[in-house]
Amino acid sequence: MTKKVDFYFDYGSPATYLAWTQIDKIIKNANAELNMIPMLLGGVFKETGNSSPAFIPAKSKWMNKDLKKHAEIYGVDYNSNSFFPINTLNLMRGAIAARKMNIFEKYSEAIFTGIWVKDVNLGDIPILQDYLNKNGIDTKELFSLVQSDEIKTSLIKNTAEAVEKGVFGAPTFIVNNELIFGQDRLEFLKLALK
Amino acid sequence: MTKKVDFYFDYGSPATYLAWTQIDKIIKNANAELNMIPMLLGGVFKETGNSSPAFIPAKSKWMNKDLKKHAEIYGVDYNSNSFFPINTLNLMRGAIAARKMNIFEKYSEAIFTGIWVKDVNLGDIPILQDYLNKNGIDTKELFSLVQSDEIKTSLIKNTAEAVEKGVFGAPTFIVNNELIFGQDRLEFLKLALK
Repeated sequence: MTKKVDFYFDYGSPATYLAWTQIDKIIKNANAELNMIPMLLGGVFKETGNSSPAFIPAKSKWMNKDLKKHAEIYGVDYNSNSFFPINTLNLMRGAIAARKMNIFEKYSEAIFTGIWVKDVNLGDIPILQDYLNKNGIDTKELFSLVQSDEIKTSLIKNTAEAVEKGVFGAPTFIVNNELIFGQDRLEFLKLALK
Repeated sequence: MTKKVDFYFDYGSPATYLAWTQIDKIIKNANAELNMIPMLLGGVFKETGNSSPAFIPAKSKWMNKDLKKHAEIYGVDYNSNSFFPINTLNLMRGAIAARKMNIFEKYSEAIFTGIWVKDVNLGDIPILQDYLNKNGIDTKELFSLVQSDEIKTSLIKNTAEAVEKGVFGAPTFIVNNELIFGQDRLEFLKLALK
């Protein structure tokens, strides 16, 4: 039976970006199914009492080096973002809109690499619009969907469900009710898919 | 040239216990030198603004399972401690006293396994005294040293120096000025020792 990976994500998390660069390979090797679930990490933090490690200066300093080491091991590009932390509310609503428009993969790649490779300030709407247009994404339809109640509610629902299932940070993977937290636990994800 | 590993630790940290079960093998394989540095993790948290993940219920739940998975992989005993979080002030002062008495390894093994295998409440002085005596450790000399200004100052100094060097949690390893945080980064410690 094909195993399903629920991948709870927020584009604003650098560890989630790194996990995202690896997930297709893992899913393919395990012959599994990937279910990317957009959530608002800020909302998860608020509900669970957790907070970004980036706000502890000493931890942030270590974490930045640690992320770079992992990127090197994975062989992927990674740069810290000068505008961090980025407000991802519109970006995460956009993920749900993009799925409706059947451009989820294209949109996700644009947003993840925009923030974590190209150092773009995607929390800024005019910059976001320009950036998406340059990446061949129709922002007229996307932005209109982003403002719809249906999509706003959908993101709130995803975030509440994530918290209900025990999610407290990103990235989080759930496979057969087993919660696996962190891009540094991809080996545990592979084990869960065996 | 022999490389030196500064291992900043607090007995009250379960991840530190797990790292401690692995460190001798790593040091031996790398022909390195181990320098165990007792610090007060509560003091480090206070100075850096960090806090124990155990205080976020959802994170704590995940972490407990994650520690158990690692213990299984390492092939070592591990049990969560019913009295967590234990006040480790006397235990960490005791580590410095034990070094003075040339019983540091014996003391460390007794304390780590007392907390993280045998579920003993070592934050309680009478229980600690009884437990150490049963493990062949002379508490008369140890407790007298623990109360000395020299040892109190020594722990304060270690903790302040740790924070100065960028330590924000435990376990932390420093090798050639590279800070490696977490028992889940032992592979990075091995790399640093190559």
